[in-house]
Amino acid sequence: MPTYRLTVEYDGGDFCGWQVQPGLPTIQQALEDAAFTALRRRVGIVGSGRTDSGVHARGQVAHFVVEEEVDPYSLLASLNGILPKSIAVRSLERATDGFHARFDARLRLYHYYVTTGFRALDRHTRYRIRTDSDFDLMNLAAGLLHGGHNFSTFSRTQSETENRVCHVHRAVWVRESCEGDWHFEIAADRFLYGMVRAIVGTLLEIGQGKRELEDLPRILMLKDRRSAGPAVPPFGLILEKVWYADDLDSSAKSPSG
Amino acid sequence: MPTYRLTVEYDGGDFCGWQVQPGLPTIQQALEDAAFTALRRRVGIVGSGRTDSGVHARGQVAHFVVEEEVDPYSLLASLNGILPKSIAVRSLERATDGFHARFDARLRLYHYYVTTGFRALDRHTRYRIRTDSDFDLMNLAAGLLHGGHNFSTFSRTQSETENRVCHVHRAVWVRESCEGDWHFEIAADRFLYGMVRAIVGTLLEIGQGKRELEDLPRILMLKDRRSAGPAVPPFGLILEKVWYADDLDSSAKSPSG
Repeated sequence: MPTYRLTVEYDGGDFCGWQVQPGLPTIQQALEDAAFTALRRRVGIVGSGRTDSGVHARGQVAHFVVEEEVDPYSLLASLNGILPKSIAVRSLERATDGFHARFDARLRLYHYYVTTGFRALDRHTRYRIRTDSDFDLMNLAAGLLHGGHNFSTFSRTQSETENRVCHVHRAVWVRESCEGDWHFEIAADRFLYGMVRAIVGTLLEIGQGKRELEDLPRILMLKDRRSAGPAVPPFGLILEKVWYADDLDSSAKSPSG
Repeated sequence: MPTYRLTVEYDGGDFCGWQVQPGLPTIQQALEDAAFTALRRRVGIVGSGRTDSGVHARGQVAHFVVEEEVDPYSLLASLNGILPKSIAVRSLERATDGFHARFDARLRLYHYYVTTGFRALDRHTRYRIRTDSDFDLMNLAAGLLHGGHNFSTFSRTQSETENRVCHVHRAVWVRESCEGDWHFEIAADRFLYGMVRAIVGTLLEIGQGKRELEDLPRILMLKDRRSAGPAVPPFGLILEKVWYADDLDSSAKSPSG
């Protein structure tokens, strides 16, 4: 049956996370409701993964299956007309039959935005941190996360059986053009629940001299959430991009293209 | 008497413009109220210029004069603690005596942000335009604005006596990293009331084939607001930076430094 792929941007501040929860506003629910209005039938919208309450996305990917073909461009326009302004479908196209937004995802990229200064315009997407945070030291620490590790230390849920190994392809702090504005970029094949926010909180502790750099490999080994730093708030976190096998074959192709 | 210079960022969506208006929330009023709380005396806050209701700033510059010296860093922290979150004082420092934020300003830079796509996260700072807008044609048109012209055609207020000549140093459309997101950059020694929004509205008409490129020099000569296109909405407009003689002497120095 025809499968369609969407790239979705949203302001997570207006929602209780991605996943449908009865009686609560969620992004998945808003998309399924909009699809029902536009298509006059119920479809299930499957995302590449859940985002927590308050977490944003610029490049969440999702798919749905319908019995009959639809015109992607007019559906894109309809959905955007129906959806609240805090959710936008950036692109919508026919995917290969059997495409699955979650199972086929190969790499996910999150950014966490901070400032050591005072900002107003991006106060809903940027977390204010201490002025004396050591950028270079946090970047040294970030480098220790590369490769495959059991990330239980940075996960909110504990499980003995589930696979807890994630392969981190990129973990780096980047200075932005506006002085004092930085963000942390992390790309991995998969993320555990609460993982990015716990990692950022721990890196900030290192940058602020509350924890030694050498602590990071040690606590990774402990596999105990209590050994890591506190989670930073959700509003600084944005799911930027999800890559699929097709995208990775051709580097010119982006998830929305 | 000691003069202090502030760089201010604000979300204009929460205010009826910069300038104090009795009974209405304005940025100047909020800053003067915060200064009164912090300094325990009334000071007048003078901006580099007014911004309209709904227009934002990332680099508005202002000054105030007090009888006694104050510690800039602790006052910066106090003001940011008192101000609503939609206003941030980004920097505050002692200026040379007699510094005047309006009279001494040499160059002002505005950006107007648009998208031809569907966006959610920056919906409060980016205006959606038609997908078929011609970027290159709008840039050709922008080039015609360079130099000194009487900009009456793009001003909301009409006056026979006032000086209506502005010198445009930069007028260019820029593609951003996110596909379909563009902004218009315009720097001039001065701007007339409503000028940037009327210029952008007219450039969009050219880009959308509603008006010929050759129309632009012609309507500039007419000095009649009715000959130009409609103003675009205020929420896409950001006052990015103001330069002073001191800043221009040393290219390494920014208005906040």
